[in-house]
Formats: sequence, C-alpha cells, structure tokens
Amino acid sequence: MFYLIGLGLGDAKDITVKGLEIVKKCDKVLLEGYTSILTVGKDALEDFYGRPLIVADRELCESNIDDFLKEAKTNDIALLVVGDPLGATTHTDMLLRAKEYGVETQIVHNASIMNAVSCCGLQLYNFGETVSIPYWTETWKPDSFFEKIVGNHSRNLHTLCLLDIKVKEPTEESLTKKVRQYMEPKFMSVKEAAKQLVQIVENQTDTGISKSSLAIGLSRVGAPDQKIAAMSLGDMQNHELGAPLHSLVIPAPELHPLEIDYLAQFR
Amino acid sequence: MFYLIGLGLGDAKDITVKGLEIVKKCDKVLLEGYTSILTVGKDALEDFYGRPLIVADRELCESNIDDFLKEAKTNDIALLVVGDPLGATTHTDMLLRAKEYGVETQIVHNASIMNAVSCCGLQLYNFGETVSIPYWTETWKPDSFFEKIVGNHSRNLHTLCLLDIKVKEPTEESLTKKVRQYMEPKFMSVKEAAKQLVQIVENQTDTGISKSSLAIGLSRVGAPDQKIAAMSLGDMQNHELGAPLHSLVIPAPELHPLEIDYLAQFR
Repeated sequence: MFYLIGLGLGDAKDITVKGLEIVKKCDKVLLEGYTSILTVGKDALEDFYGRPLIVADRELCESNIDDFLKEAKTNDIALLVVGDPLGATTHTDMLLRAKEYGVETQIVHNASIMNAVSCCGLQLYNFGETVSIPYWTETWKPDSFFEKIVGNHSRNLHTLCLLDIKVKEPTEESLTKKVRQYMEPKFMSVKEAAKQLVQIVENQTDTGISKSSLAIGLSRVGAPDQKIAAMSLGDMQNHELGAPLHSLVIPAPELHPLEIDYLAQFR
Repeated sequence: MFYLIGLGLGDAKDITVKGLEIVKKCDKVLLEGYTSILTVGKDALEDFYGRPLIVADRELCESNIDDFLKEAKTNDIALLVVGDPLGATTHTDMLLRAKEYGVETQIVHNASIMNAVSCCGLQLYNFGETVSIPYWTETWKPDSFFEKIVGNHSRNLHTLCLLDIKVKEPTEESLTKKVRQYMEPKFMSVKEAAKQLVQIVENQTDTGISKSSLAIGLSRVGAPDQKIAAMSLGDMQNHELGAPLHSLVIPAPELHPLEIDYLAQFR
C-alpha cells in the first residue's frame, strides 16, 4: 500500500492518530520536504515517530518516486506531506502513477492553509480562488496572479495568497555544470509579498486595490507562535512577522460584521 | 482555557495527536452535533477518548455556550467540531465571546471538506467560492447560490457545493407550542442536490451549465467507504452514493490534463 499522509501545519503532534499509526507500521516513510515546511524539522519528527525518515526532495518526488511506488506493491510505504497531502499537483500525479503500477493507495487528510486561514476570522465561503505569489528577479516580474486578486476583490471575495518557497533550488550558474549546486532555502515573507504587490498597484491604478487597501499577514498558522496582523498593504511592507511560513490575505472590500469584529484584535 | 478542536472528516482516529491530548486532559468536553457529522457517533468517540462527551446542539452553541465559556476561565473546556473548527460562523463568534470574558482560547485545526475535496483530483487553487445548497420546500425554492456557481464556471473555476443538513430542527407545527418537537435528522444527497440543480438549469438556459454538464458527487470523504462518482448532472439525479455526508462539485468547463486523467477513474 502507498500512503499519502498529511502532517497538518504546526509541529509533530499535528499528525492525526490514524496517520501516526500508519507511520509506525510502514516499511519505509518518506518526508516530502520542498512544497512546505513544519515549524519543526526532520529530527523532531523522527524522535516523535521513533523511526528514521527518508527526505524526499523535488527530484525524488518528480522523477525517482517510481521505485518506491513499485515497492509499495508488496510493502507499506508512506509519503508525509506538510498540510493536506493533495495540496500540490505532484502528489495527485503520484497517485495516478501508483494506479498504473497496480498499487493500492490511501490518503490521510489533514489541515492545510486553505482551510486554516479561517483563523484570521474571515469566513472560508467568502474566499475566491487562491493565488501563488512567486519571487521576482531582476529580469522576471510576473504579475498575472494580481488579475485573480482583482477578480475576487471585485466580486467581494477574499484572496488567500500563498507565498513562494525555494528549497533545494539549483543555482543558475550550476545548471550548465556537472555538479549541481543549490541555493540557500528561502521563504517569502508577507513583507516581501507586500512590496511586490505595492509595485503592481502603483502601476495599475484602477483596480480597486491600492497601497491603502487592507491586508492580513499570517505566520506559522497552527503553531503556538502563530502571528496575525491586519494593516494597509503599504504598512505591511515594513511589518516583520517572524519565522516562516507566511501567508497573505487580501480581504474583500466589504466585510461581514463578524469578520470586522474578529479582525479588530489583529489591527 | 477554551479549546476548539477539529475532528477531521472520517472516524474517531482522524483527530490529531495534539487534539487527543487536550481532550484527555480537559475538565469538560462538548461535541458539536449539528453543523456536520462523522461516520461514527458519540458512543464511538467516547469509547476512543475514554471519557464522556456533552452533546452541544444548536441551542447550546448559539445561546447557552456562555456558561461553559465563563467556566473556561478556571477550567479546561473543549468543544469538538467535525472538520476544521472554524468552518462555521458560530465558532468564530464563540471565540469573540470568550475574549470578552477574558478567557484564553486555542484552536486545533484539522482537515475540512474545503481542502479534502481535492481527493477527486481537482486542484484546490482552481476552486472559486464555495456555495451551500439548501433543502427546498413546497413554497421556498431559493436559487441564489446558482449565480455563484455560474460565476465560477464562467471564470473556469470549480465550485464545491456543501449540501444541507437538518439536525434537531424544530417541526413547523411545534414552533408555536410549548413543547418543542424535532424533525428526523436529514442530510441532502448528491441525488437530491442534482435534482434541484436540474430544475434550475431547465429554467435558466444561457448560463453555460446544463443537464449534460459534468458533476462530481462525493460521499464520506476521508472514510474507508468514501465514494466519488463523475457523470452528467442529469445522470447524477439517479445516482445513489450511499450514507451521508455528501458533497457535490460542479467542475470548471476546461480541466487541466492531470485533472482529466485523475477524474477518469470515477466515470
């Protein structure tokens, strides 16, 4: 059997009882380590589970997972994924490949930022489509996600913005070399996201979203040191929200009275 | 401390390790029993936790929760909620009231249908706003949710439709009587939802959604007997998907190749 197990968002104890039982009985357990992170690392998870984990980077998940999938025909193999295991397309693709090999699969769901974002007091059914904000470079400044934020905003819907994560990304220089070198991991902060957004709203002025629009920054949702801050997008450019992961919400222009009351504590 | 603890979607073991530890140490534990249900009842949960639970119906949650909140100033009280604890406005409201009483609160997130719906292979970031489909009566047939489905569809987004639940609803006749009588609990099936939707699309013919549009029915997501079926909305009117809870998805008109491949197994 091949298991995809969600770890939730905070620490080792955010796994479900069902998930933990499976982890303990599996022959091999992989830890997916590049689409998201917990507030604790591999060591803390190994301590808590009482067993070793194999780190699965992008290369393993996208190109070398087949060996594990084939092995799952006769053995129990689990892949642990931060949040819910079906948040990223890679994992859906894995399930399809498993099916091709005739391997049975089971999914153990858990909280993901897509539902836990409700901790800021905005109601989930008032969210439109989710967007991802990528890191800009000197020469590459994509802003197509902004159109979706504007679309949600114009229909009075909130937008959850997932912020870029770079883990084990090869350096540009090493792409042509034999020995691959990797960049330091980096995680976009709400500060950085707000800066990129402000650059966009300064160029696109008739969208209904400006520097003075409300923005909500969230960090380490589900962890004891979770932080939530509500202020203008302009001010968010200078607001430090601590260790990763961060997410940003651009709320609808008109909020429900309960949403306003709840948000007040974060202003 | 007042704890709001998500139970996830399947059975007793879908609680997180963190959630279970809190349940075991609390002075009183309430089980919210009217916005959703697990595949197991109160008895199975009490067996698994090794402690009694107090059932919290709508009346208790909306009007009589204050006594418990005040008690949480000195004792540890938990409210267990199916799915993620912040899916319904009632619970956000409770956290605000707790704050008024100076009571500390903690949320333990879990999977909700809002993210677990990805088990059908549709990608979460391609979902627009979620809608709720209410039971129609002879005289009351609201269809405003349909506008939102059409809005999502026209922007090539999927719509998750949450289906109505009636638990401990007073009968119409008893509303004027001293002794309140309650209806049998009922849970809308994908069949019933499809029937109501077909009535709407037969009246509104230029929306891009018709009887032949693709619909995806889901039942008991996260449980071992989970079912997923993909067929036309018209056919879904006659498709039996077993025990509750059910959810319905109206997919975007153009699907990603990976979504098509994954959905194929449910056709």
